[in-house]
Amino acid sequence: MSRGAPNQPPRILAEGRYLTLLDEGGWEYVTRRGVTGIVVIVAVTDDGRVLLVEQLRTAVHRRVIELPAGLVGDGDAHAGEALADAAVRELVEETGYAAREMVPLGAGPVAVGVSDEVVSFFQARGLTRVGPGGGDHTEDITVHEVPRPELDGFLAAAAARGLAVDPKLYAGLYLLDRGPPR
Amino acid sequence: MSRGAPNQPPRILAEGRYLTLLDEGGWEYVTRRGVTGIVVIVAVTDDGRVLLVEQLRTAVHRRVIELPAGLVGDGDAHAGEALADAAVRELVEETGYAAREMVPLGAGPVAVGVSDEVVSFFQARGLTRVGPGGGDHTEDITVHEVPRPELDGFLAAAAARGLAVDPKLYAGLYLLDRGPPR
Repeated sequence: MSRGAPNQPPRILAEGRYLTLLDEGGWEYVTRRGVTGIVVIVAVTDDGRVLLVEQLRTAVHRRVIELPAGLVGDGDAHAGEALADAAVRELVEETGYAAREMVPLGAGPVAVGVSDEVVSFFQARGLTRVGPGGGDHTEDITVHEVPRPELDGFLAAAAARGLAVDPKLYAGLYLLDRGPPR
Repeated sequence: MSRGAPNQPPRILAEGRYLTLLDEGGWEYVTRRGVTGIVVIVAVTDDGRVLLVEQLRTAVHRRVIELPAGLVGDGDAHAGEALADAAVRELVEETGYAAREMVPLGAGPVAVGVSDEVVSFFQARGLTRVGPGGGDHTEDITVHEVPRPELDGFLAAAAARGLAVDPKLYAGLYLLDRGPPR
């Protein structure tokens, strides 16, 4: 490997419909066009059930258990959208639960070797069921409501059925227990 | 958006030096050529210090605090390498600590929207300092040894200095506290 100093502007290697592949000083990564952020939502109902979503993820050819999450600012309808507003919207779309409040828990890049993605974690407070969830018309999402004490067992059973678990789920629970940054 | 069923073989949109951009039924993602896995290492010394690494990450244009981590099987020297062996090697390279044992804590995809990456978390046990760390010749890594009770304060101070924190750090600590899957 020989990579230059990261002080030259990125060079476009390819533009897909959603992803652009860049080379910046010898480091390659993708960026999503028109997306300003990614929100991940830690949502626990008043009676202690964690809201999880399950869906087929083409990139890994498996169904994956994840926290509810979504893109911010994608599409004309969501241009200029604030992170917390996107978190409220995505939680309703995916799980059918409305949140009274979204509390920021922290943010950071999850895949710096391949992507410029930065994810922002929110704690959803004051949950009310308002719809069926399941995602928008491009998505096919199964919602799970898992009591916190049963979570490790639920995930082990899911793994035994061949499902994958996105580690952002563990990160979200860690941040929930730690609480918002001071 | 209109995306087909993910039952057709992926189509190559572009091949960089390290990353290949694919389209599979309308879903785009990148894959790394010649890499068979990614290991992330949760390493706590006998006197309770968590080993962290800090380095400039071109994709996000910031220095990032992360758990020690690395690619598995990249390059001729590491072809066919087992995950646990890669974890031992990367921990020495990046931090200068050798581990007597690597205990698998869990694995999963961290960025399914853009990448097929699956990361495997290991707990390093029996740590001995054997070298300076700092990474290989392509890397410029600063090692931090942070007592666990001071970790939240350390990360808040780092954030205040403009550094980012990779959420896989939180996932690793969650898995460490949970223990290996049964």
